[in-house]
Amino acid sequence: MQKTASLQQLLEDRIKELHFPASPNDLYDPLRYFMTLGGKRTRPMLTLLGCELFGQPGEKALNAALAIELFHNFTLIHDDIMDQAPLRRGNPTVHAKWNVNVGILSGDVLFVKAFERLADNPSEYLPDLIEVFTRTATEVCEGQQLDMDFESREDVSIPEYIDMIRLKTSVLLGAALEMGAIVGDASPRNKQLIYDFGVHTGIAFQLQDDLLDLFADPDKFGKQVGGDILANKKTFLLIKAKELAASNALYASSFQAMLNEKDATRKVELAQRLFEQMGVRELARKEMERYNQLALAAIHEIDVPHEQKVELLSLAQFLMNRDV
Amino acid sequence: MQKTASLQQLLEDRIKELHFPASPNDLYDPLRYFMTLGGKRTRPMLTLLGCELFGQPGEKALNAALAIELFHNFTLIHDDIMDQAPLRRGNPTVHAKWNVNVGILSGDVLFVKAFERLADNPSEYLPDLIEVFTRTATEVCEGQQLDMDFESREDVSIPEYIDMIRLKTSVLLGAALEMGAIVGDASPRNKQLIYDFGVHTGIAFQLQDDLLDLFADPDKFGKQVGGDILANKKTFLLIKAKELAASNALYASSFQAMLNEKDATRKVELAQRLFEQMGVRELARKEMERYNQLALAAIHEIDVPHEQKVELLSLAQFLMNRDV
Repeated sequence: MQKTASLQQLLEDRIKELHFPASPNDLYDPLRYFMTLGGKRTRPMLTLLGCELFGQPGEKALNAALAIELFHNFTLIHDDIMDQAPLRRGNPTVHAKWNVNVGILSGDVLFVKAFERLADNPSEYLPDLIEVFTRTATEVCEGQQLDMDFESREDVSIPEYIDMIRLKTSVLLGAALEMGAIVGDASPRNKQLIYDFGVHTGIAFQLQDDLLDLFADPDKFGKQVGGDILANKKTFLLIKAKELAASNALYASSFQAMLNEKDATRKVELAQRLFEQMGVRELARKEMERYNQLALAAIHEIDVPHEQKVELLSLAQFLMNRDV
Repeated sequence: MQKTASLQQLLEDRIKELHFPASPNDLYDPLRYFMTLGGKRTRPMLTLLGCELFGQPGEKALNAALAIELFHNFTLIHDDIMDQAPLRRGNPTVHAKWNVNVGILSGDVLFVKAFERLADNPSEYLPDLIEVFTRTATEVCEGQQLDMDFESREDVSIPEYIDMIRLKTSVLLGAALEMGAIVGDASPRNKQLIYDFGVHTGIAFQLQDDLLDLFADPDKFGKQVGGDILANKKTFLLIKAKELAASNALYASSFQAMLNEKDATRKVELAQRLFEQMGVRELARKEMERYNQLALAAIHEIDVPHEQKVELLSLAQFLMNRDV
């Protein structure tokens, strides 16, 4: 992944070179702060590699990649307010470090900066880039709203859950790749295929996240195992377990006992054991694997030589290479 | 203003036809609600008339006009959260009717819709339209931040105040007109002139607002006279009075007495009398008139036949035709 490493460096350099005005400092200091908190820069890397896949230099897609990264950070700043999250990547969130108003307004201006970068592309690509970008931005907002709606709903189904994670997180991966493909002069069919690769990879990645949250090796996992279940978060595992418990009296009582358990350590252990026993862990693994296969089938169909796909497949493999 | 009336009708029809998806309803119901609360639609009308000024049908600028109106409403939804405003046009604000999270997210998606409309223009206009739109959106955010900063600052100067109102409200009027001119195929010089006309008119309009807030005829004014002074809001009048009081011992004590006055009716009367006596009312009127003249000089310079300017001048006159 030598090419990937050099593109990653180029991207980091460009992010460092983003110059926000000095004043008003409560508008721009939060952006200087937030944009350098780190993160893996997965999405803009997908844009660069999405362009290289079609035989064009990744550099050509730098402005599209920056637009994606700025947009992603805008959504994080606003989501952190809505989720009342105190920390992001181990540091105070913008609204926690400043206040909610600063979070709203600096997020808004970051969104404008994303559009500026997007517009800073050759005009022949603009209609296509803007179409993908605005459709995806709309969907990401819809996904965030559905996620919030689910908190107060008890009847969320698996298809609804998959649709929510598709909108909230996966379409942006697809769009990041497709925008690279647009600038890389890909054919309409290839653009669709790379978008599908991204969306399916995103869904698989989220299902992996759900699994890791409950079943990760505590020594390797960076945070507390079982956070989702302790917060009664409606993940694939919890929704599926509830569904199965509804038609099986034995599971129903164990499921209820797990929900009612007050002791955190005990609750996580009960959930681990029950979800294993009910086959929910295995079902989640299978669903994840199904989306992985869909992703691979899509990238396989793209008619460019296999060696051009290696970097992108390596990155996807890297993302999915966690024990679940 | 027959042409203006028919364009206004066309615009209202198009706003009614904006179809937001049914679901998620907490994302889109607020937009259906907010976009039909009314308002004078001044900004999009400026876009349509800005196009007609250059001899092209206003209809050609409809998408640019809708982009401006959607953007303006997005800023209102977010500003209402930041200002903790319970009412907008006599109705509950979005965050008051739903909650802050709904206000943030539905505002965000409205911003996306504005960009979608903007992008729905012939591609030859896109780079120019996007440049004006994103620059202006950035400035509007900067203006809102400065306005919030001023609340906790005691040393705001008149030039700083003028710059704040220019950014917060006036550049959007200039941009609305310029976007109409872009679609109307105006020359670069004419585009600059109509932008200047809009910005100067906007500053004059805001100064008129400051004056009306304290000196309007209570029978004609729709709200409580003196709202700004009771909230110690830093308007042109208050900043100028403070400045003059600093170098005049007699004014200084009257000014302090006015600030300290607890009785609302008495405080408003004291401010009216003092600001008249100090010449602050007259200075504000002169400054307003100065910006009005700058606006007229700019539109005068535009090299199209005078009769094509009549509708636009009538609208500007209508905006400025209030007793101060």
